[in-house]
Amino acid sequence: MTYECDMHTFYKGLPDVVVLPSTTEQAQAVVRLCRRERVPIVPRGSGTGLIGGATAPQGGVMVGVNRMNRILEVDLPNRTATVQPGLINLWLTHAVRDRGYFFAPDPSSQMVSSIGGNVSTNAGGPHCLKYGITSNHVLGLELVTGTGELVQLGGKTLDRPGYDLVGAAVGAEGTFGLVTGVVVRLLHTPEAVKTVLATFRTVIEASETVSAIIADGMTPAALEMLDEAIIRAINAGVGAGYPEGAGAVLLIELDGPRAEVEAQGERAAAICRARGALTVSVARDEVERALLWKGRKEAAGAVGRLTASYLLQDAVVPRSKLPDIMRELVAIGERHGLLICNVFHAGDGNLHPLICYDERSPEELERAKHANEELLAACIALGGSVTGEHGAGMDKARNLPLQYADADLNFMFRLRRVFDPDGVMNPGKLLPTHPACGETFRAARPVLPEGAWV
Amino acid sequence: MTYECDMHTFYKGLPDVVVLPSTTEQAQAVVRLCRRERVPIVPRGSGTGLIGGATAPQGGVMVGVNRMNRILEVDLPNRTATVQPGLINLWLTHAVRDRGYFFAPDPSSQMVSSIGGNVSTNAGGPHCLKYGITSNHVLGLELVTGTGELVQLGGKTLDRPGYDLVGAAVGAEGTFGLVTGVVVRLLHTPEAVKTVLATFRTVIEASETVSAIIADGMTPAALEMLDEAIIRAINAGVGAGYPEGAGAVLLIELDGPRAEVEAQGERAAAICRARGALTVSVARDEVERALLWKGRKEAAGAVGRLTASYLLQDAVVPRSKLPDIMRELVAIGERHGLLICNVFHAGDGNLHPLICYDERSPEELERAKHANEELLAACIALGGSVTGEHGAGMDKARNLPLQYADADLNFMFRLRRVFDPDGVMNPGKLLPTHPACGETFRAARPVLPEGAWV
Repeated sequence: MTYECDMHTFYKGLPDVVVLPSTTEQAQAVVRLCRRERVPIVPRGSGTGLIGGATAPQGGVMVGVNRMNRILEVDLPNRTATVQPGLINLWLTHAVRDRGYFFAPDPSSQMVSSIGGNVSTNAGGPHCLKYGITSNHVLGLELVTGTGELVQLGGKTLDRPGYDLVGAAVGAEGTFGLVTGVVVRLLHTPEAVKTVLATFRTVIEASETVSAIIADGMTPAALEMLDEAIIRAINAGVGAGYPEGAGAVLLIELDGPRAEVEAQGERAAAICRARGALTVSVARDEVERALLWKGRKEAAGAVGRLTASYLLQDAVVPRSKLPDIMRELVAIGERHGLLICNVFHAGDGNLHPLICYDERSPEELERAKHANEELLAACIALGGSVTGEHGAGMDKARNLPLQYADADLNFMFRLRRVFDPDGVMNPGKLLPTHPACGETFRAARPVLPEGAWV
Repeated sequence: MTYECDMHTFYKGLPDVVVLPSTTEQAQAVVRLCRRERVPIVPRGSGTGLIGGATAPQGGVMVGVNRMNRILEVDLPNRTATVQPGLINLWLTHAVRDRGYFFAPDPSSQMVSSIGGNVSTNAGGPHCLKYGITSNHVLGLELVTGTGELVQLGGKTLDRPGYDLVGAAVGAEGTFGLVTGVVVRLLHTPEAVKTVLATFRTVIEASETVSAIIADGMTPAALEMLDEAIIRAINAGVGAGYPEGAGAVLLIELDGPRAEVEAQGERAAAICRARGALTVSVARDEVERALLWKGRKEAAGAVGRLTASYLLQDAVVPRSKLPDIMRELVAIGERHGLLICNVFHAGDGNLHPLICYDERSPEELERAKHANEELLAACIALGGSVTGEHGAGMDKARNLPLQYADADLNFMFRLRRVFDPDGVMNPGKLLPTHPACGETFRAARPVLPEGAWV
């Protein structure tokens, strides 16, 4: 059942129809028809989303953009490319790599996820610490809005007059309309890359090292962390050879001009040592670099060895609050008798806690739900956010009132209605739905029902 | 008459009242009162805008934010500051410089312009080539909308759930409401700065050198260009000592880690020489650097020696089209018997043509108007934009139909009405007004009246 769910398997629902348009005109015809008939439209890229955004719980028409997967233009003098939404993320880099360019946003799914899907969720990735998230790399969008109109938002030149609606449309999760074209920024491939891997006794020590590296003035391309439970899983599985007693792995990647990268790599290693690292390894070549990344890349898979089921969560705290949230997550896990593993983009403060449970035990599932709610509330309490890079989708739409005032949410709701006055575009996603009337948020609290699964 | 105009002196108009609130609550009370009475509100920072955005042609209440000029928080671990809108741009850097940080957006007016005004126009500046424009440095806004509600857009953490309205609100020119607080990003002061000044026979040669530098893979902090007419004015005035026969000055500034900057400075100088530069100077210290910048900084003032009046225009072409637009501007000037000088952010393709004329001659003014319209049309024809960093204001609101389809403009209009349903916020600015009904754009073309001054 390919179209029953995306990678958030908790929510399922089959659309009545799946259409796969090949052209903007076909996509526009579908939207016009659905609007006339008041039928929900659910846009979908590769279906690798983690928040239930590309599922059709109310049925309706699912519009897959997979056939619209061409690169329409590569304009190297202006460092841009114009692509169709179904293009696989990594294919764009493959197309321009030989000429010395790359497309920076690198969600872990980049081998299979579509650029349209990345735009929809405003996807991040390990290297977004230095390079920014998807919205920092989208210059323009072609959009069939929920009214069936075709609009151009932004374009190749920066800072066009009028309102910049590109920023709002990136991350709109299909609620404004169907993205049918994307103008993205291309970057020069950095001259050199240096990867440093350090292990620490505790995740607290590693978190403090993250702050020390940032405070030193460098901006690594990536600053990734693995905690003790993940390390155990990886050591048992892929055999990355992390030392006994390591409570945290910190992976630091620097890129840029060779002279800078060499100097910064040494400084980063020195900071790790000064902060009490158990081991510090610096990759000397691409093979060693791949080895250092191996554990990180296979982390989520390795957790499968520890637990029957897990919920991969996505949340954010200000970077300086990492030690606090790490302590808090340990406490939450202990309180509910559950293992919470952590693999995350430490430089961004973007956490991916994996709450491990056994779905065959309804009682354990209940504990996992409670742990999850406490985890999100803890991030908010530290000044963070209930989602970092995966979006809100169905999974977290109801959590938005934790983070926003009624007035804030109502402005979002009114903006949504500008693009989709009849509510046909991906209904029930992104913004909370009022449980009584089924309508998207209208300032009636609490939206989150008691004991709701969030 | 301080409040009669901003720095675009072509449009004037006195407000009925000027209020200078000290608190968000006072600002909110003003908006609520004005909305109830349907009185226009014109927000104003330091009044250094160049597009008539902070004038009150319809009277009403001008709200100056000058008393709301405090830094509310500096959070160095998270590299952010929270400030009030009246804070002078450069004061923020002054407050954090000793601790090794700076605020990147550097409009030429930064000694006097306010951060609220920079937000309103989405201001750029010489160093925005590397660092990005104001919208790239604003993480969150506190806004009293045209409904009188107080909303928070964005915040300290990246990629919050829901719609990102910060991007649309930065550059909204006061049409969404009054900005009462701004969360900005602070950057680490670069370790080293290297400035290179090269002179060329023609602006075409210099433009091609710009492309060659970018194609080499470096991103200079600034890439500024002066053309022959400006060079003459500067040589006559401040005596920067540019060589006889120089048709273009290219100012290249590199910043970053010392090792990188030294290597790139040499490469940039070598590229200039290879491209036929007449002279190449590399600053050895801060004093020499200031000298190289002196001509650029005093360029607009020096033009005052050449002409009775001038219009400082702001437009953009894709960077690769710089040689084309330079040829076009020469042709336009010759066609109308007018001198058009150019000083611009070449790396961004952001032009600032100065159309020189004598306002005492109505006939010459007419020619200047026609030259101006042709100039903007030429930028659009090359895939550019009618404004780069100054905004649309009153000056260019009517030009937007040159660049946007009706559907695009109507979505902007509907977005404006989300925040300001009664049309009290800075009416007549940013979006074109229909000449017949006085209402903001509603898809009736042409909006631009025949022979209109744009």
